[in-house]
Amino acid sequence: MTASSPIGPEIERLIQLLAKLPGLGPRSARRVALHLVKKKESLLTPLAAAMAAARDTIVTCQVCGNIDTADPCTLCRDPRRDPSVIVVVEDVADLWALERAGAVSARYHVLGGVLSALDGVGPEDLNVESLIDRTRADGVKEIIFAVNATVEGQTTAHYVSDQLAGLNVKISRLAHGVPVGGELDYLDEGTLAAAIRQRTAL
Amino acid sequence: MTASSPIGPEIERLIQLLAKLPGLGPRSARRVALHLVKKKESLLTPLAAAMAAARDTIVTCQVCGNIDTADPCTLCRDPRRDPSVIVVVEDVADLWALERAGAVSARYHVLGGVLSALDGVGPEDLNVESLIDRTRADGVKEIIFAVNATVEGQTTAHYVSDQLAGLNVKISRLAHGVPVGGELDYLDEGTLAAAIRQRTAL
Ligand SMILES: [Zn+2]
Ligand SMILES: [Zn+2]
Repeated sequence: MTASSPIGPEIERLIQLLAKLPGLGPRSARRVALHLVKKKESLLTPLAAAMAAARDTIVTCQVCGNIDTADPCTLCRDPRRDPSVIVVVEDVADLWALERAGAVSARYHVLGGVLSALDGVGPEDLNVESLIDRTRADGVKEIIFAVNATVEGQTTAHYVSDQLAGLNVKISRLAHGVPVGGELDYLDEGTLAAAIRQRTAL
Repeated sequence: MTASSPIGPEIERLIQLLAKLPGLGPRSARRVALHLVKKKESLLTPLAAAMAAARDTIVTCQVCGNIDTADPCTLCRDPRRDPSVIVVVEDVADLWALERAGAVSARYHVLGGVLSALDGVGPEDLNVESLIDRTRADGVKEIIFAVNATVEGQTTAHYVSDQLAGLNVKISRLAHGVPVGGELDYLDEGTLAAAIRQRTAL
């Protein structure tokens, strides 16, 4: 849009921000903005409220890295979950995928990414120290690496498992039910559940 | 998500609403919600504010059907625009596309859709009466149909132009620079400008 744009600054700003969302470009951002303005009562108003509520209530769990309205999060405080098993994931989206599959009833640890020389992600950028601390302090017996079956994911699992050496903890990873090269968040629930059941020693 | 979902109601509601946006499904809605929560300061907070501002300030122009923060809109009140020419579009997105192209400096009229037996859209669902009223009242000399080169778009243009018969107004349509079957909002600016220049009598 140029300075002489017929679009007011309010909607122009809305479009600019929407274009920053993953999967949306300038054109789809305009389409979404128009849709929102047309559905002011049924969509724009509740979505603005939902975003404000999320902004005000969502926090990152300082224990596991999950996001929730409580810290520690609901999963970390759930007494029915086995506290001696920690499932390590790259991202909160992967935690959600495992929970949708009902694949495991344990605790989680969100690394917050994977090691990547290309993207400049080193060990200090991931939540590794806190995993070591938890493993040492909480009587953890097993750590399951539920990371993507990519080179980066597997490299990260090996790196983190090396850091856990000597802590007397069983280390496993998802079975190769996960298609090689595939990403966790794309899989169906049955495949995820099978991959948890058939986890192998690392 | 089930009732025992680890995702709190705030983020679940956010995901449900995001999934209603055009082009987003449940999976991409989850991805967007996570992205928003991760970028709380730089994206979620400003986007929530931008949506609230849009909700509070954006109105539909009662003259032309454009959306703006003023009614009548900026385009309807612009004295540099030729008030004797009205460009008829299906949707506000098409008005934006023509404005981005700088294709014409006239007034607009947004029909709000096209005639479609399949979708149950009849003449009474479109802003046709107000176009006739404007044409009669405002000394309009020419009406340019800038509608999609689809069967529905062309049918709608013919229907509306029939309603304007006897009003002593020149009626034209975009030149066939618009690819047949194509949609206006996808075109490059040069094609749109050429199509306006080479408009033909209807
Ligand atoms: Zn937690
Ligand atoms: Zn207007």
